[in-house]
Amino acid sequence: MDQSVGENREEKIKVAILGATGYTGEEATRLLFNHPHVEIARLFSLEFVGKRIWEAFPRFSKKLELVVEKFEADSSLDECDVVMACLPHRVSMGFIGPLLERGIKVIDLSADFRFADPQSYSAAYGVEHQYPDLLKQAVYGLPELNRNKLKGCSLVAVAGCYPTSAILGAAPLLKNRLVRPRGIVIDAKSGVSGAGRALSSGSHFPECNENVSPYGIGKHRHQPEIEEQFSRLYEGEVKVTFAPHLVPMNRGILSTIYLDCEGDVSLGKVRTAYEEMYRDEPFVTVLADGSYPRTADVTGTNSCHIGITVTPEGKLVVASAIDNLVKGASGQGTQCLNAVFGFDETDGLAQL
Amino acid sequence: MDQSVGENREEKIKVAILGATGYTGEEATRLLFNHPHVEIARLFSLEFVGKRIWEAFPRFSKKLELVVEKFEADSSLDECDVVMACLPHRVSMGFIGPLLERGIKVIDLSADFRFADPQSYSAAYGVEHQYPDLLKQAVYGLPELNRNKLKGCSLVAVAGCYPTSAILGAAPLLKNRLVRPRGIVIDAKSGVSGAGRALSSGSHFPECNENVSPYGIGKHRHQPEIEEQFSRLYEGEVKVTFAPHLVPMNRGILSTIYLDCEGDVSLGKVRTAYEEMYRDEPFVTVLADGSYPRTADVTGTNSCHIGITVTPEGKLVVASAIDNLVKGASGQGTQCLNAVFGFDETDGLAQL
Amino acid sequence: MDQSVGENREEKIKVAILGATGYTGEEATRLLFNHPHVEIARLFSLEFVGKRIWEAFPRFSKKLELVVEKFEADSSLDECDVVMACLPHRVSMGFIGPLLERGIKVIDLSADFRFADPQSYSAAYGVEHQYPDLLKQAVYGLPELNRNKLKGCSLVAVAGCYPTSAILGAAPLLKNRLVRPRGIVIDAKSGVSGAGRALSSGSHFPECNENVSPYGIGKHRHQPEIEEQFSRLYEGEVKVTFAPHLVPMNRGILSTIYLDCEGDVSLGKVRTAYEEMYRDEPFVTVLADGSYPRTADVTGTNSCHIGITVTPEGKLVVASAIDNLVKGASGQGTQCLNAVFGFDETDGLAQL
Amino acid sequence: MDQSVGENREEKIKVAILGATGYTGEEATRLLFNHPHVEIARLFSLEFVGKRIWEAFPRFSKKLELVVEKFEADSSLDECDVVMACLPHRVSMGFIGPLLERGIKVIDLSADFRFADPQSYSAAYGVEHQYPDLLKQAVYGLPELNRNKLKGCSLVAVAGCYPTSAILGAAPLLKNRLVRPRGIVIDAKSGVSGAGRALSSGSHFPECNENVSPYGIGKHRHQPEIEEQFSRLYEGEVKVTFAPHLVPMNRGILSTIYLDCEGDVSLGKVRTAYEEMYRDEPFVTVLADGSYPRTADVTGTNSCHIGITVTPEGKLVVASAIDNLVKGASGQGTQCLNAVFGFDETDGLAQL
Repeated sequence: MDQSVGENREEKIKVAILGATGYTGEEATRLLFNHPHVEIARLFSLEFVGKRIWEAFPRFSKKLELVVEKFEADSSLDECDVVMACLPHRVSMGFIGPLLERGIKVIDLSADFRFADPQSYSAAYGVEHQYPDLLKQAVYGLPELNRNKLKGCSLVAVAGCYPTSAILGAAPLLKNRLVRPRGIVIDAKSGVSGAGRALSSGSHFPECNENVSPYGIGKHRHQPEIEEQFSRLYEGEVKVTFAPHLVPMNRGILSTIYLDCEGDVSLGKVRTAYEEMYRDEPFVTVLADGSYPRTADVTGTNSCHIGITVTPEGKLVVASAIDNLVKGASGQGTQCLNAVFGFDETDGLAQL
Repeated sequence: MDQSVGENREEKIKVAILGATGYTGEEATRLLFNHPHVEIARLFSLEFVGKRIWEAFPRFSKKLELVVEKFEADSSLDECDVVMACLPHRVSMGFIGPLLERGIKVIDLSADFRFADPQSYSAAYGVEHQYPDLLKQAVYGLPELNRNKLKGCSLVAVAGCYPTSAILGAAPLLKNRLVRPRGIVIDAKSGVSGAGRALSSGSHFPECNENVSPYGIGKHRHQPEIEEQFSRLYEGEVKVTFAPHLVPMNRGILSTIYLDCEGDVSLGKVRTAYEEMYRDEPFVTVLADGSYPRTADVTGTNSCHIGITVTPEGKLVVASAIDNLVKGASGQGTQCLNAVFGFDETDGLAQL
Repeated sequence: MDQSVGENREEKIKVAILGATGYTGEEATRLLFNHPHVEIARLFSLEFVGKRIWEAFPRFSKKLELVVEKFEADSSLDECDVVMACLPHRVSMGFIGPLLERGIKVIDLSADFRFADPQSYSAAYGVEHQYPDLLKQAVYGLPELNRNKLKGCSLVAVAGCYPTSAILGAAPLLKNRLVRPRGIVIDAKSGVSGAGRALSSGSHFPECNENVSPYGIGKHRHQPEIEEQFSRLYEGEVKVTFAPHLVPMNRGILSTIYLDCEGDVSLGKVRTAYEEMYRDEPFVTVLADGSYPRTADVTGTNSCHIGITVTPEGKLVVASAIDNLVKGASGQGTQCLNAVFGFDETDGLAQL
Repeated sequence: MDQSVGENREEKIKVAILGATGYTGEEATRLLFNHPHVEIARLFSLEFVGKRIWEAFPRFSKKLELVVEKFEADSSLDECDVVMACLPHRVSMGFIGPLLERGIKVIDLSADFRFADPQSYSAAYGVEHQYPDLLKQAVYGLPELNRNKLKGCSLVAVAGCYPTSAILGAAPLLKNRLVRPRGIVIDAKSGVSGAGRALSSGSHFPECNENVSPYGIGKHRHQPEIEEQFSRLYEGEVKVTFAPHLVPMNRGILSTIYLDCEGDVSLGKVRTAYEEMYRDEPFVTVLADGSYPRTADVTGTNSCHIGITVTPEGKLVVASAIDNLVKGASGQGTQCLNAVFGFDETDGLAQL
């Protein structure tokens, strides 16, 4: 089970995972375990402290023997090159500040460093930002957009799950101003793992099985995140209506995006924009005309599948599918880590 | 909602069900079995001919002993007062014409008589209409809109499943012209029973379980049906973008409808329109602010639950949930039957 | 199965439901609402106090307006004829004692009065029984076995969900001593609603979806309940190995029971025993040779479907399917209520 | 995305997959794509001929460009070192005979070469065996039992899915004669992918979702396969009662095995037998006392998780979980391939 790849083991970078026993922590552990240039050095959590990681996740048994540690204020991570933080929003920033000060790079899966402006963060998350200065150095972690900025950076704010599906779905249209910046509708459908491992009646099996339901229409915290990134791509203010829905499946997000063409826009022109942007992207596939993405086709992978329709009335309908725990979280974090350290972006993510 | 009959058993009307062994046929049998004024007199199908109905549906065992018959050209249904036709589109009209000529009322669950204009039918269903003259006497079977026309009519074209959820969801807005007639988006999510009992790879368990996917965007045959009814309500041409999605559950449709307010429209004004239209409707519930409909809450019932949101940007988001086999098919057929015969509309549909 | 009441509304009995906002309470409300001779007079719970019942269960909207009350020590239920107690084990008995003293009949869905011997109860549930004397007057609530004792009795201890499926499945074999009293294996599969409405990681959607797992093998509290009833039927001590499993569906229990034939037992002899016992039972169907029960066929109904196989090696395999919330709980409670008050046993349970 | 592992690409063995577009073919492609010493050279199927494999399975897009070929009688596979045959029972043997004659090794996932005796095959599969002589050289493909025989062999008959879970679950007990050879019950629960990609009403979503049901009790073709292997381990005739059940999930098999201890057998003695047999097995985990296997913990992996309970009455209950498409089919085929060619058995199977 030696996964080293012909290089010296010494060349591997060492990663610590914070929040290792949540769903994104589990997925980060799964993916980084398979990574040719990464050694998982330490796992932290508030649960299962002192236990082997396979006591939390039996699927790791006979594969990974690391013991889960409690992260203390004085925990030294000096031997680690990078921390993957899989912590809840609001909690994450409290850990990240001190780590950065000690010179450890951080890949943060939470929303805490995703906004450029601390006011936007406060408005969306309801608390003051503790490290407003760090927002400036944070790079929004979506390699398809920010590859160059990610290289060597010290703090990555990995894009949210819904935003990733929406941004990859709409980016070529916004960047090329093929659509109007108003009236955009994003109807998103998510599997239940997106709500995390914490118990809630909304994730109680008999409540969400055999059920589909919207929630938080127009109020979800990912809406301002989407609008900020859409506006950057468009280079002008973009507004969206965002309606998330819960669907009875474990994993997957499908965002169906409805946009109005700007003037006369042919399907051909639209497809060219997508081809140009994604032709060489290893994780983005634009489907042929008449094909629609299925979340099942991206489950467990870091891929995003995109289908495009132009209606006779000039409405563009883009459907974009990802695995919320991979391309929507830990896989994207791994891809960002690769970009930061100059690895091939598919390292650790190439398996089918 | 008193279920007592109080009348003699002789007064019950006799119903024949065509296509009794499909999903809508099964559901029609289930509901009419419970109906205080209906006797299920005969069951027809091409499958299970000569068998007791509980051999097709074991849930009917010890409850219903009827034998399934094959419908022949000369099958006399003279003893029947009404036929509930649960047949596929295109097939249904061939049976219905002769029945009407013999004076038997027909409740048709197929799409064959839903359009006023035979051209619209041909455009949507790809075949010539065999009985274009009958289209004039057909009443679109949505009692909340057409109660008066249904009374005593001879042919009911029961509204489609997606159209029912969309029309009930948007009717008060269209009727009161609170929204613009363009740019309307309907993002609909359906359980798999909506695709029927015929085998297909799209309904193969490992293909649709743990998956969500759109299909037929802008091309679905329910789009022109929705547009025709929307236009009637608005008294002017209305266009929609309709995108259906398949969700891994047996039953239920949730339609999320995005509309643009016409001028300054307050949530209060919107709610008033819904209250006025639905206050006395036994099957339509408008949820309180901040509540969203769940398909699980309407499963097995003839109810439609509607939630309304107005966004700061003036977008109206209406979510409307029904059970596709009940309010979206056989329950609505039963409600129409009640309207035709002057029964209480909740007869056979009152049970929780 | 005529649902007409024919009697005056005044003749309806009044029922109070304790624990109305749990899953069995919801189901009891649903079923009794449809009951021709019952009026739901009061609903009690610790949750949703002061709210209309449809605020807890939106499916009841426009149908049932009762307000949920908190049950106080001095709550008078004097106007009620019977209480349906849908409370947790150990909690239930504390409410029931005082009610009986006031002369109110009780249908108890908990396990608190199911054992004849208080020691058995303590062994299984880990607490002393508060009302050991009441155990003597309690009748085990399985009408197919105890119909006569139920008539007019004051306290019904409704059979557990797993026990119901196991007992109905094996009763004809045990009663006729066609099988050996040792080595019986009961492998039971239950939907997740059986674990109740309380949140737990075992019922968290991403944990139990796409998963099947055993739990509590040889330790489940329903094992001694099954053994006590099996022993009564056999008129001698019977021992079983009971292994429950959780299956990713909302409702349904399938118990597959493996027994050794006593001497030369033909399938014919076995079928005769089942026919004799269940021929006239409205809720028990014995399937034809080669047919197997499906939980989906009994969902929402009070039915039990049983399939029988005899292997060449003389092993009897009986599969028995029920809906855990209906025949396994509130439906059986309703059937017991019918038996107590002399109603037709199918009243309120006849709908398909 | 170069997956070569420091060795020369020339050193990779070349594999052809027959039946590449079924579920086991897809899974074989997925696993072998990740294998460090394997190159997938050719893919054959009757479907999608002439198309890229990602047109059949969009999840392979941007990863695998191979074109699906139709296998002709004269198709030369001379450049291939080994064929992984993912074909239906009865069909597979017709392809395999000629391949072996040309000197190509075959890993056969079908049942066609699993029995030592052609009579047993005919009895179970209802057809004459076309290559009875080849049965002698076939090695039963379960590396935990037959590792040594697999090395260098030319024909592997990969163990069936149900048999794998049952054999790994019971092997230490049988080999050490800790249990009696009669009265063994195997109650198995399988996900729906086990029924394959061919459409059938049993795999139609609305039929198997929200349902659990047994099928083929005492008649399933895996029963004689299990009995043959159990008898070898026990070195004496063993008989079992095998009852498979369909569970609404995509993947996974849980076999719950009930055995009678032979004389006084302590849990300690039992655990020692399991420890000795599986301590060094990379894919078999024996869980701690009181822990039960969950199919979700092995999904996508080649692992088998085993939980053991001894009841006070001397019944041993062993629960054994695998992924039916991995350890129950293509993963095991890959592990066998590794054993045949002398690779590390975890090659291609090490990822979490």
